[in-house]
Amino acid sequence: MTNVFFEKNNNIKINDIFNCLKLKKSSKDIKVNDINDLIDADENDITFFHSKKYLDSVKSTKAKIIITNSKLKNMLPKNLFIVEVKNVLLSVAKVTTLFYPNALNDTFDNNVSVINQNKFTNIKIGQNILLGKNVKIGKNCSIGHNTIIESNVIIGDNCKIGNNVLIKYSIIGNNTTILDGAVIGKKGFGFYPGENKNVRYPHIGKVIIGDDVEIGCNNTIDRGSLSNTVIGDGTFLDNQVHIAHNVKIGKKCIITGQVGFAGSTSIGNRVMIGGQAGISGHLKIGDNVQIGGGSGVIKDIPSNSKIMGYPAKNIKEFLRDNK
Amino acid sequence: MTNVFFEKNNNIKINDIFNCLKLKKSSKDIKVNDINDLIDADENDITFFHSKKYLDSVKSTKAKIIITNSKLKNMLPKNLFIVEVKNVLLSVAKVTTLFYPNALNDTFDNNVSVINQNKFTNIKIGQNILLGKNVKIGKNCSIGHNTIIESNVIIGDNCKIGNNVLIKYSIIGNNTTILDGAVIGKKGFGFYPGENKNVRYPHIGKVIIGDDVEIGCNNTIDRGSLSNTVIGDGTFLDNQVHIAHNVKIGKKCIITGQVGFAGSTSIGNRVMIGGQAGISGHLKIGDNVQIGGGSGVIKDIPSNSKIMGYPAKNIKEFLRDNK
Amino acid sequence: MTNVFFEKNNNIKINDIFNCLKLKKSSKDIKVNDINDLIDADENDITFFHSKKYLDSVKSTKAKIIITNSKLKNMLPKNLFIVEVKNVLLSVAKVTTLFYPNALNDTFDNNVSVINQNKFTNIKIGQNILLGKNVKIGKNCSIGHNTIIESNVIIGDNCKIGNNVLIKYSIIGNNTTILDGAVIGKKGFGFYPGENKNVRYPHIGKVIIGDDVEIGCNNTIDRGSLSNTVIGDGTFLDNQVHIAHNVKIGKKCIITGQVGFAGSTSIGNRVMIGGQAGISGHLKIGDNVQIGGGSGVIKDIPSNSKIMGYPAKNIKEFLRDNK
Repeated sequence: MTNVFFEKNNNIKINDIFNCLKLKKSSKDIKVNDINDLIDADENDITFFHSKKYLDSVKSTKAKIIITNSKLKNMLPKNLFIVEVKNVLLSVAKVTTLFYPNALNDTFDNNVSVINQNKFTNIKIGQNILLGKNVKIGKNCSIGHNTIIESNVIIGDNCKIGNNVLIKYSIIGNNTTILDGAVIGKKGFGFYPGENKNVRYPHIGKVIIGDDVEIGCNNTIDRGSLSNTVIGDGTFLDNQVHIAHNVKIGKKCIITGQVGFAGSTSIGNRVMIGGQAGISGHLKIGDNVQIGGGSGVIKDIPSNSKIMGYPAKNIKEFLRDNK
Repeated sequence: MTNVFFEKNNNIKINDIFNCLKLKKSSKDIKVNDINDLIDADENDITFFHSKKYLDSVKSTKAKIIITNSKLKNMLPKNLFIVEVKNVLLSVAKVTTLFYPNALNDTFDNNVSVINQNKFTNIKIGQNILLGKNVKIGKNCSIGHNTIIESNVIIGDNCKIGNNVLIKYSIIGNNTTILDGAVIGKKGFGFYPGENKNVRYPHIGKVIIGDDVEIGCNNTIDRGSLSNTVIGDGTFLDNQVHIAHNVKIGKKCIITGQVGFAGSTSIGNRVMIGGQAGISGHLKIGDNVQIGGGSGVIKDIPSNSKIMGYPAKNIKEFLRDNK
Repeated sequence: MTNVFFEKNNNIKINDIFNCLKLKKSSKDIKVNDINDLIDADENDITFFHSKKYLDSVKSTKAKIIITNSKLKNMLPKNLFIVEVKNVLLSVAKVTTLFYPNALNDTFDNNVSVINQNKFTNIKIGQNILLGKNVKIGKNCSIGHNTIIESNVIIGDNCKIGNNVLIKYSIIGNNTTILDGAVIGKKGFGFYPGENKNVRYPHIGKVIIGDDVEIGCNNTIDRGSLSNTVIGDGTFLDNQVHIAHNVKIGKKCIITGQVGFAGSTSIGNRVMIGGQAGISGHLKIGDNVQIGGGSGVIKDIPSNSKIMGYPAKNIKEFLRDNK
């Protein structure tokens, strides 16, 4: 799929990648279309394999070129063209920057101008609203004062956007409410601790928000790095919630105030989370899970669990232990 | 008392309510003035009873019409006219919407215009300030840049409002400071999980802030649903505090950074709360209580207690158990 | 050093101080240049001693006049001129206000005007940016929409400031990024609980941010009271972090989302802190410390420790105890 938010370099060959990673040149300099994760990669893309956890995805990936390290390469199918590196994720960051040279320069959008009410159907607008280029807004929406919507953002029908909201690199469904002061779509907090300086990695993912969603005041929702950050249909977020890059939240979840999600965690459907709970990164929380306020979740949680505590455990156990 | 913030439908009769709740019509179609909780209801109002906890209030309510369910109705005095429903609170939401049809449409105020300095006494103002209709501001106030104060808000004398502040549905006393980025008066995070979609309930309460109060940067203080959210005289809140709907905080409290209060909890006077503590909903915290930083409070706390931990317990016990 | 941010009264004599503290007049009415802490005070300044913890600093202070109480005064070298009071810190607040009468009036800067792009070298600017007087901005910077930078703030080269940012009383290095909605430099949450009202103390410190720093969205970083709040070179802060007055954070630290620091704590270099952790006030955290997400740190932590929990302890111990 074309990424409308970031300009891609369409002339990358395998030797450009080898050059960027300081590897020896290949004799057959084939064209590479894009970089993508194992699941989303197409057959002309380069992908990467950095942890055994993803072995199943390796087996079904369409990609034929794969970045990995010396330890993991032996697990790979024979037909894959292997790009062997020391640090897989750092190499992915470098190759992503090769394809998307602007994705590291994450400054404000200076292609904005004051909104022109006549370009939209039955829209109710406040003052000092700034819109980037090619912003699409459905019918019957309202947008509050001082709100900024950056270029290429898509918003569905019947949405209500509050005051002082900032939206970038996002696609938003219908009937969704975004409350005052929310910041949606800035790059995630992602980088590699380097010898001299931290190396940022580019964020070419989006924020994708479904239908009938409510995003609370002063929320911060970061966009994905390679994949997207996703908020499912019917999910409601209270104030001051923080959602890191690549988090996927299912449908009809209820997330109360000051909850935080670390990067790349996925949350099922109809999950309820009490105030100030924190969910560590790279976890999988099932459907219908209930997480008590203030909990700290540091491992995967199966569907239909009720948990509480720090670290979170079965809620009955927690209450019994803390009588 | 007249609610200046929300337009009320003054022509509601009991059969309109029955109709809205899909109940059989009554033969005597009396007029109903308003909907209110047991304590604040007047004799021509409809009220509701959804939990045994409020049995004392039932006995003293002035209301004569009451929404309740089949389990609770037998506890009620004989002279009350009972509206029996399956789900009391969901029915209250529906009836409230009948009285206040606009209270669900909680978008920004588009009746604003740029502040006119000459309408106020000795005011110091920044740039791009937007004021709704009928905003009252006392003498010797200052209001920072880009701040929005919506229609009918009342602010006392000698108040200092920072930059980028949003105030709606609020009444603020004298000598009070509201710091940059605070969002005060948006609707609370209240709804009923429905079969297909979450059903929002209307918020017709206000935020009432006393004298000599300080509200920190990027705070979020939601207005009440039926009752009000209240911050007492002399109370100071640090940055990034979150206060949910209907919370009542007493006088001279000190609430440090990132503390969160869930809905309908009441806090006494001179309570001190350390950073990042969380207080669950529907609790009663006494006077002079000290709550350590990071605590999670999940039950009522008597006056003069010093508590810490998650769940919070006596601070001496906590420190002894964690040596 | 001259404090460019706060106007100082340069005509204070010792009897002005005695008068302000309601003490008996001195016969020799010498001039006092400034008030400062034990370490930074010069020989013509007045300083203060309020806790045994600072006994080492007392021995090396250059100041000759010192505020202390009856208990501590016997520990002091004989050559010091002692100003004996009941409440040392409250007296310091009063004397600081004598020197810096405007430091209590912490309202918005009304000396701002819309930024003039031509005054800066190769700057990229958004709309509605307000700048105070004497703001210095280096070359190749970008500043987003609706951002406010108050008088006398200094920003280095190659900095990227987001949208809706507020910066006051701050000095910022080179190559530093400040993301959307951050509030930097407001006064700290400092006051003394008084009989009738809380007494605020003046904040004449700055926020000093180094080179190559990243400050996340909706962060709140308060300026120091007497000393400064400091963020070291190469340190990255994620979204919704709260940093109280006088906190010193070292170099190359990584602080993830929703972490909070209470006042006057110092953090070493290369410290990593997981999401939602809280660090109590007046602590000393060493170099290379790793603090797990959700931890509550309530005592000093030596260098190279890995800790987790509430209260935080050795991470291996925490994981073993919570199997």
